[in-house]
Amino acid sequence: MRYDVIILGAGPAGLSAAVYASRANLSTLVLGLPDGSRASWAHKIENYLGFPEGISGKEFKERSVAQAKKFGASIVEEEVIAANFSENGGFYVETNRENHFEGDFLVLAMGLSVKPSGIKNEVEYIGKGVSYCSTCDGFFYKDRPVVVIGNKDLAAKEALDLVPFASKITVVSHDKKFDMSENFINKLKLNNVNLVTGKVLEVVGDNEKVSGILLDNNEIIASDGVFFALGNMGSIDIARFLGLEIDEKTKAVIVDRSMKTNIPGIYAAGDCTGEPYQVSTAVGEGAIAALGIIHEIRNRKDRK
Amino acid sequence: MRYDVIILGAGPAGLSAAVYASRANLSTLVLGLPDGSRASWAHKIENYLGFPEGISGKEFKERSVAQAKKFGASIVEEEVIAANFSENGGFYVETNRENHFEGDFLVLAMGLSVKPSGIKNEVEYIGKGVSYCSTCDGFFYKDRPVVVIGNKDLAAKEALDLVPFASKITVVSHDKKFDMSENFINKLKLNNVNLVTGKVLEVVGDNEKVSGILLDNNEIIASDGVFFALGNMGSIDIARFLGLEIDEKTKAVIVDRSMKTNIPGIYAAGDCTGEPYQVSTAVGEGAIAALGIIHEIRNRKDRK
Repeated sequence: MRYDVIILGAGPAGLSAAVYASRANLSTLVLGLPDGSRASWAHKIENYLGFPEGISGKEFKERSVAQAKKFGASIVEEEVIAANFSENGGFYVETNRENHFEGDFLVLAMGLSVKPSGIKNEVEYIGKGVSYCSTCDGFFYKDRPVVVIGNKDLAAKEALDLVPFASKITVVSHDKKFDMSENFINKLKLNNVNLVTGKVLEVVGDNEKVSGILLDNNEIIASDGVFFALGNMGSIDIARFLGLEIDEKTKAVIVDRSMKTNIPGIYAAGDCTGEPYQVSTAVGEGAIAALGIIHEIRNRKDRK
Repeated sequence: MRYDVIILGAGPAGLSAAVYASRANLSTLVLGLPDGSRASWAHKIENYLGFPEGISGKEFKERSVAQAKKFGASIVEEEVIAANFSENGGFYVETNRENHFEGDFLVLAMGLSVKPSGIKNEVEYIGKGVSYCSTCDGFFYKDRPVVVIGNKDLAAKEALDLVPFASKITVVSHDKKFDMSENFINKLKLNNVNLVTGKVLEVVGDNEKVSGILLDNNEIIASDGVFFALGNMGSIDIARFLGLEIDEKTKAVIVDRSMKTNIPGIYAAGDCTGEPYQVSTAVGEGAIAALGIIHEIRNRKDRK
């Protein structure tokens, strides 16, 4: 099934967009984990209008999911790990369960990007071997050894995207256990990717170029490239795949007042579009994005 | 008492701004009638996230008022009839009960402006004798007869602003009874303003200039200027007093993404800033306006 609109992210921005889109009879798919939204973790949301006693993040999430479903939106609780232009026009989206979905419009609403890790020298070596997107930069590491830092599906995906290029790929879990889907673990094994459980202390190099990473057991893993892929896939990662304009200083996806990105058909809403990181504004932005899409689809139908 | 922020309008945008401002310990005053908000009249609001069964406009209004009060905002249920720059710096606001309030910041959130009346030739004679702001245009009618169309305090206010200029002032109720505060009625009498109960059929003139209005009893009231002041004071009227930039095509107050108007210290939010006229977006915009003010006040204190 092809959807009118696929919403990436199941937080307040994504679910507000889903309510508007599905209520306007657009076929609407929400991909993401409602439990992964930062708002859903809030002990109490006090400043969202309409709840004078406040509301727990958990209850707000449950009510929001129920509201989106009521108007017909489908919610698939899988993690988005890739999105790109479809051969059939529009876009396709891939999840960590290897499911593919196609849609005419996208709303990017996957929240904040992962912040810098705090690993020594990460920021100093950006552009000198430190990277955040194997799809974007993998080519530069042809026949060279690389390291991917991260313990989840995002790290697996980044490592697999490097397979056609790198001579040797090592994934380091960094201070955590590996927590990847079975299909990813199998693929990593098949492609001879090394998995190392350990904590990364610093990125090492000669100030001009990365030469490896230092682990807390004093081992150095030699590497020309270090790909940071901590946590889950974030809006910024998807935005990079799609070629969206990003404010690199704030790591926010650039949108206009109607929440349109620079690429036709792709809107963004919520925390991924920058401060203030508020439920109130995310809900408003999700509504605006959906209304923009509804407007585009109606205009298109009028032209036919 | 001087307030940190005065919010003009007690609908979703105004009350969301009030929740944010008062929760940040700003002294916050909301001026307006919660019952006057369009959202409060809604049978059911279905697309505001968090209410899967929908919520009546009345209940939403009650919950919103309770939430703003809970954090310390004052709500004075009087109609705003004027706002301007204060001699003491900041702004003053006047209500239909002749109360005055002063504040460092304003949030304009009084909703949609009154739509064109449907009276014949109104639009044709804009700029040729038809006007919407006696403060702006009164001077052009020095020693000339004028008519004000409207039955409420807004019409009274407009007529009184014309007293220093016009040779003769007639207020026509247009299809309704007069419904003005006593103090306004007394002032109109004191200043020899004529009150005529009747329905206006059309604005008459020679296509270049207004010469009067035609009533449904076939009487023509000769007049060089026709001031439309139907309904209550709207955001656009206040915006004109203050000199805010307005998109004259859509009658929306022009704001940037942080909801700032062209005048420092004045923000706007909600329907008065243009489409889409949605509770979701009004709430988000009210939050953004308040966060902007909180930010400005903190920066100012830091500088001291």
